[in-house]
Amino acid sequence: MDARPGRVERLRRLKSAMAECDLSALVCVRNLDVLLVSGFWPVIGNAVAIVTDEPKVFLVVPEEARELAERGWADRIETYRLGSLDRLEDTPRVLLALVESLLRPLADGLTRIGMEMGPVHLPAAYVSMNVYGAALRAELEHAFARTHLAPSDALLASMRMRPTPWERERIRDSCAMAGAAYRMGAAALRPQVPETNAVLPFRDAYAECATAHAQVARADSFFYCMSGSNAASAWAAFQQSRMTRLAAGVTVLVHCNAYADGYWTDLTRTYVLGAPGEELRRMFDAIARARDAALAAIRPGVRACDVDKAARDVLAAAGYGAAFKHPLGHGVGFTAIDHNEPPRIHPASHQLLEEDMVFNVEPGIYIDGFGGARDCNVVGVTGDGVELLSPFQQSPQEWCIPLS
Amino acid sequence: MDARPGRVERLRRLKSAMAECDLSALVCVRNLDVLLVSGFWPVIGNAVAIVTDEPKVFLVVPEEARELAERGWADRIETYRLGSLDRLEDTPRVLLALVESLLRPLADGLTRIGMEMGPVHLPAAYVSMNVYGAALRAELEHAFARTHLAPSDALLASMRMRPTPWERERIRDSCAMAGAAYRMGAAALRPQVPETNAVLPFRDAYAECATAHAQVARADSFFYCMSGSNAASAWAAFQQSRMTRLAAGVTVLVHCNAYADGYWTDLTRTYVLGAPGEELRRMFDAIARARDAALAAIRPGVRACDVDKAARDVLAAAGYGAAFKHPLGHGVGFTAIDHNEPPRIHPASHQLLEEDMVFNVEPGIYIDGFGGARDCNVVGVTGDGVELLSPFQQSPQEWCIPLS
Repeated sequence: MDARPGRVERLRRLKSAMAECDLSALVCVRNLDVLLVSGFWPVIGNAVAIVTDEPKVFLVVPEEARELAERGWADRIETYRLGSLDRLEDTPRVLLALVESLLRPLADGLTRIGMEMGPVHLPAAYVSMNVYGAALRAELEHAFARTHLAPSDALLASMRMRPTPWERERIRDSCAMAGAAYRMGAAALRPQVPETNAVLPFRDAYAECATAHAQVARADSFFYCMSGSNAASAWAAFQQSRMTRLAAGVTVLVHCNAYADGYWTDLTRTYVLGAPGEELRRMFDAIARARDAALAAIRPGVRACDVDKAARDVLAAAGYGAAFKHPLGHGVGFTAIDHNEPPRIHPASHQLLEEDMVFNVEPGIYIDGFGGARDCNVVGVTGDGVELLSPFQQSPQEWCIPLS
Repeated sequence: MDARPGRVERLRRLKSAMAECDLSALVCVRNLDVLLVSGFWPVIGNAVAIVTDEPKVFLVVPEEARELAERGWADRIETYRLGSLDRLEDTPRVLLALVESLLRPLADGLTRIGMEMGPVHLPAAYVSMNVYGAALRAELEHAFARTHLAPSDALLASMRMRPTPWERERIRDSCAMAGAAYRMGAAALRPQVPETNAVLPFRDAYAECATAHAQVARADSFFYCMSGSNAASAWAAFQQSRMTRLAAGVTVLVHCNAYADGYWTDLTRTYVLGAPGEELRRMFDAIARARDAALAAIRPGVRACDVDKAARDVLAAAGYGAAFKHPLGHGVGFTAIDHNEPPRIHPASHQLLEEDMVFNVEPGIYIDGFGGARDCNVVGVTGDGVELLSPFQQSPQEWCIPLS
């Protein structure tokens, strides 16, 4: 994948956002923000991106990440060696020294440096990842005593909220691979399989699709399955597959977060094995109609709360008002799943939708002791409406898996 | 799993470590440290563990994590709701208020509170996770202005370095499940399969083993495959499966980090499909002998550098001195993979081994353009020697997969 096509528009936006916040430089260490500004998604977290106000993008990455970093659009890539056989090294110190040496020549012009300060939800890019705590900030404060360090969290979140067309294409890609995985995984669902095993065909299919996609270097997925009464808990802050065995006639909720080179999707489909009973049929129908109402409401200039309301009203009219226990959506793309990521499609959010915003639309019904169903799609706001980025298995008929 | 058997010894050690550092309380937010002190492994990161010097352990967790938290040994569990439909909430604020309310009654006795401050490698416990940056520290500094906040990083790392017998049993469990996965995955290896797909049978097998293990609530694994000349890069800071197809006669290195309820293993086996050539046979033989020499050197009182040397000397004598590009090992168990986690089995480390220490032993040979082979096991130091926690596929004969 040549990431450079993504460069021009992203740098244009960076320049204008930095000017607006009066920043002479921006320093990013969080994986989702490094991706945003440089097109490179750090693997284990110990990379730093520096943006100057020209703008130029510098990356400091471990030597072995050079090849991946070159897929992005940094103007300059400095590498460092992680570890030595001669000394017991403290990794961040090497890295911080390099960052300082890159910023130093700019020091005269540096009046305000933006950096991440607040809490954040980091997506899992690898089996484990480095976080700095307050170390980087302390180091920069020490090295650039005359420069004001300003929190850049809001600026970065606001840029993540509106992926460029090129970035949206990447998100669409991961939705498409996940769609193929859902089709294959759903066909393999059958009674008696534990939830923890039911997700494996979905996950394998995603990996196989990514392998076949010549332009994707790194891809993985997290699928969670919650069935029967477990699915009634799927509104919570996290999903959990358990040893519970699937059964015919109950809701089988399958949630997915998957990435291709750092661009994420956030999806859910809910199935039933065999013919659904009357109550389930009503739930599925209400959810599909709530989704359609929300999609019909999305266009630039509309308030986020009104999109939430469009779906919520349908569910309430169907008798499921109290059972829809969470907001309708949140920003998706650079984050895997973070309910606080803007734009928040939330009953209390008066934020106006803008072209390019990407978020999920996830009407759900959760009934204790009975089950839960959710249909979660990713959408992008267009000039005059909405693009559904996950156009697969949209009809309740497709949610019913025949018992063979 | 009743985690309480793990409680007594862990609390005894916590009490003595806190006394040694003169701490009247300890506040932990990082997933590996919360697990260490409470037996509960946070899912998405927004949990806080507070240890008083009695010691008592308090947990603050999202409402929906109560069931998981109860599997640990906290004396008191406070829950909070993540998110609201009425207000756009800022999660950490709710959480921090609760933490403050728990610490407040102790305020008179609080002279020094220990908290995590330095950089750390966090294992992936879920698809994404919350990190606080400097937010928690700022909040506590503000709320307890007369209390000294002391960095607890070294104290916690030192405790993680020596799992209790109960914790070691958990690590042994995840090694055993990974061992079964390696046997099944290796049997499925065949030429022409891309590396990214070759790992799928390993990963599925681990999940299936965990499903069958009645006492494991959460389990997952990360397998990476690097074959042929890609395997020559497997000494780097991270592993990466690529679209490269496996071939007969070349090294097929399979790396694994897997967890069961937060306790991790770190393993590698290297295979060849069909009969190995002369060079590969020599490499496999040297690696097995280097491993045996290291294991034979491990016992309490021995310097870490001497264990590294035992393996390094064997490889050097076989002509592979320069090809063994990294230290012999590092702490494993609470961390997935972190080369800085003590005890570091490193040429420059004079640290003395102690009973209960758990670390990996990973002799490797990496030859550019040819391939790479590594044998990574997890071991525990016993009263007079070593326990191999991953006793599977130890002989080079088992690394040769017949072509069917």
